[in-house]
Amino acid sequence: MPENKNLTLDPENWDEMRQLGHQMIDDLFDYWQSIRDQKIWKPIPEEVKDQFEKPIPEKGQSPEEVYKEFKEFIFPYNKGNVHPRFFAWIQGTGTPMGVLADLLASGMNPNTTIGEHSAMYVDRQVVNWCKELMNYPQEASGILVSGGSMANITALTVARNSFGSEKIRQKGLKAASAQLIIYCSVETHSCIQKAAEIIGLGTDSVRKISVNERYEMNVAELEHQIISDKKAGLLPFAIVGTSGTVNTGAIDPLDELLKISKTYGLWFHVDGAYGALAKLDPVYAPRLKAIEEADSVAFDLHKWLYVPYEVGCTLIRDAKKHREAFAITPNYLLQESRGLSGGLDSINNYGFELSRGFKALKIWMSLKEHGKEKYAAMIAQNNRQAEYLADLVNQNPELELMAPVSMSITCFRMIKPGLSEEQLKDLNREILLRLQEEGIASPSSTILNGKYTLRVANVNQRTRMEDMDLLVREVLRIGNQIVIA
Amino acid sequence: MPENKNLTLDPENWDEMRQLGHQMIDDLFDYWQSIRDQKIWKPIPEEVKDQFEKPIPEKGQSPEEVYKEFKEFIFPYNKGNVHPRFFAWIQGTGTPMGVLADLLASGMNPNTTIGEHSAMYVDRQVVNWCKELMNYPQEASGILVSGGSMANITALTVARNSFGSEKIRQKGLKAASAQLIIYCSVETHSCIQKAAEIIGLGTDSVRKISVNERYEMNVAELEHQIISDKKAGLLPFAIVGTSGTVNTGAIDPLDELLKISKTYGLWFHVDGAYGALAKLDPVYAPRLKAIEEADSVAFDLHKWLYVPYEVGCTLIRDAKKHREAFAITPNYLLQESRGLSGGLDSINNYGFELSRGFKALKIWMSLKEHGKEKYAAMIAQNNRQAEYLADLVNQNPELELMAPVSMSITCFRMIKPGLSEEQLKDLNREILLRLQEEGIASPSSTILNGKYTLRVANVNQRTRMEDMDLLVREVLRIGNQIVIA
Repeated sequence: MPENKNLTLDPENWDEMRQLGHQMIDDLFDYWQSIRDQKIWKPIPEEVKDQFEKPIPEKGQSPEEVYKEFKEFIFPYNKGNVHPRFFAWIQGTGTPMGVLADLLASGMNPNTTIGEHSAMYVDRQVVNWCKELMNYPQEASGILVSGGSMANITALTVARNSFGSEKIRQKGLKAASAQLIIYCSVETHSCIQKAAEIIGLGTDSVRKISVNERYEMNVAELEHQIISDKKAGLLPFAIVGTSGTVNTGAIDPLDELLKISKTYGLWFHVDGAYGALAKLDPVYAPRLKAIEEADSVAFDLHKWLYVPYEVGCTLIRDAKKHREAFAITPNYLLQESRGLSGGLDSINNYGFELSRGFKALKIWMSLKEHGKEKYAAMIAQNNRQAEYLADLVNQNPELELMAPVSMSITCFRMIKPGLSEEQLKDLNREILLRLQEEGIASPSSTILNGKYTLRVANVNQRTRMEDMDLLVREVLRIGNQIVIA
Repeated sequence: MPENKNLTLDPENWDEMRQLGHQMIDDLFDYWQSIRDQKIWKPIPEEVKDQFEKPIPEKGQSPEEVYKEFKEFIFPYNKGNVHPRFFAWIQGTGTPMGVLADLLASGMNPNTTIGEHSAMYVDRQVVNWCKELMNYPQEASGILVSGGSMANITALTVARNSFGSEKIRQKGLKAASAQLIIYCSVETHSCIQKAAEIIGLGTDSVRKISVNERYEMNVAELEHQIISDKKAGLLPFAIVGTSGTVNTGAIDPLDELLKISKTYGLWFHVDGAYGALAKLDPVYAPRLKAIEEADSVAFDLHKWLYVPYEVGCTLIRDAKKHREAFAITPNYLLQESRGLSGGLDSINNYGFELSRGFKALKIWMSLKEHGKEKYAAMIAQNNRQAEYLADLVNQNPELELMAPVSMSITCFRMIKPGLSEEQLKDLNREILLRLQEEGIASPSSTILNGKYTLRVANVNQRTRMEDMDLLVREVLRIGNQIVIA
């Protein structure tokens, strides 16, 4: 390298790169504007898959060529959760403004952890808005994380560390006076078990309480289990209530769980990754009222705030306990009263991560664009769509509703006289696969009481009532084409 | 809501929103193209800060108005790590192509965890490329995470869970036969201590071994400590070697640490968040050779691969142990051989998170654009710039080099005859603050052997040799203006 030649990764030709940026904007808008008329999914051809087997490129190629490869190999084989009939798992749609905010966030590229700069204030404001959304006290603390799993494990780490006189942060769990125990239901999201495993409690520390016929935690069994664990010399420390289970959208009896947690001095955490934001729907607000008094709540913004991946939020009622679980200030991060190192408390004092992107911006711009009322109406719309789908199912003797509809999840299957459970599974599984393969719609599946069921989970801002009509029509059409031997 | 009116968060006017997207592209390119002539930092006026105190908006406003607020309140007060003279902490610059890739990733918005779609293949290919960058075996496993903290804690969780017959994932640490112990140096990044605290080992389980005058771990002390801990009935299980300490860029004697880990049957993890990629610089490659035989390595791509936030990588030599630490498959995530639910092994089986964005795309497009060789040259350039700065410091009697230069970090301070240590601190602290406040450059500071020092950490793709000349000139100019009483 000659000494006077400075290398850079900036474009050799700025105008061409700028032009490429404009082309991308146009291509994305063309894609979104026509998404309803596109197939929701298509298989990836083998020759395209071969592209993804190639080793690391030694030499570069022009930006235009790279983008051409993107358009040929990547863009056409998208997952489909931007499509109006994507109902698989629980995956949000995103919005054009959310995407443009991600562009700006990436373009500014601030490390949003420390220092006196605008992203720190936007992040704080968005966390404060999250408290407003949950009707949580403003003196509570919170942090934006990548999603529900991180939000839950962050809260459970605080819960664990703030447990009595155990000094777990310093001494670790080996030194705890007894095994700590956490309570949730059998329908609780797998990330709670994973969190318990990661933070050193182990799978065995998770008591999975049974559920009633609406898939809600059985409170009597919970209380009995706590008493029995205490008698056995164990240390119950936290109850996790779910606001919207992943299988059926069920809501645990949060007010009763809150009461029990107070009775026994346990931390009450609400996993609302999917459904805490249903608080904005007046139909669900009363049953979610107890969130406001929980010790912590976790919820996703890339689900029911419809922003692009990744962003979730943890709120912790006791800000001091929150900070005590994570704060470390090494010498190279000392804060100043002036300059770049001034400003707000560093965000790494409240979570796992040190480097953090500017994920707050898409929430800030989205809430400014639409306002809270519009989001309330959108969430209510998804819930009504699920109820509408259930009505269609109930009206049709060839279809069977598999669980009570809660929030925006509808579980159902096609039935035919004389088919065994195994044959019904084969039938509905084939319906699901053909719905996807023909590019019509993407529900997913689950197992409820041992029975295979189609599962329509809707946190989709593009879905219309008519999409539910179409879905039912297509399920019946495909189902009637299938011969089960 | 009337039943036939479908609400959406898509734009009321698509053409205007598209136009706004074009405007953003132009504004970002104008910003980047003129960044060298802009002030690196400016204070946020109080009236702007007031904006960030406002409660959540109930009603929406037009996209144009939202963007106007962004341009007025947020854009001008950026952190500055996109600027050619940003040298604070260790924060990458990003590139235009990396930003445009983020735009596309957000626009496609695939949840990159499960299913048969292109993002899953891109993610796998990028992880394979990461193995190539580290000269790691292709049969190893890996996962892209948000950054170094998550990369390190992911690796340490695998290390902890795969420890002998302790069955920690299932039974938790309380049931372990003795306290597990982890070894690192006093210069190790704070995220290792934080990881130990979070995964339930506790602060006390972290043995911080002293360093030599080059800030590298003292191997004799390490070995002595392991022996003494074993004698005390404790369970040593992991050594963390650092490839590029955050304070001075020091490299622990990795080959010796590897040897000791083998002798005592410990997991050898390399924290290369900052400096593992210095493997691409022939000057550093020999000292980083041992990474190839480590049990795990963590490194950031938003530092020395210069992509925008957030992305780091963990590689684990033993893919089976990696999967065994995290895999859970709930009913609603069952994989199929066809359709959307087909495809590759779900990525949540290898880490903390379930929902994941498409962070692989910016690495894919960046490596395609520039090729590995260009990155090698860029990293080498940063290292040579640090050495050049050290030469300037050494040539000037008013400046003092505070640590040996390793990788791209140069620590120095201004000195004046007759000043006490406390006065030297005041002098250099004031120099730092004025450099930032005048918008010239943003180094940061640290404490080395109790002495306050300016710290220039350079993972900046826009920095030129002349920026080092300018920095030294300005330090002297400002320093000579300051009167220390």
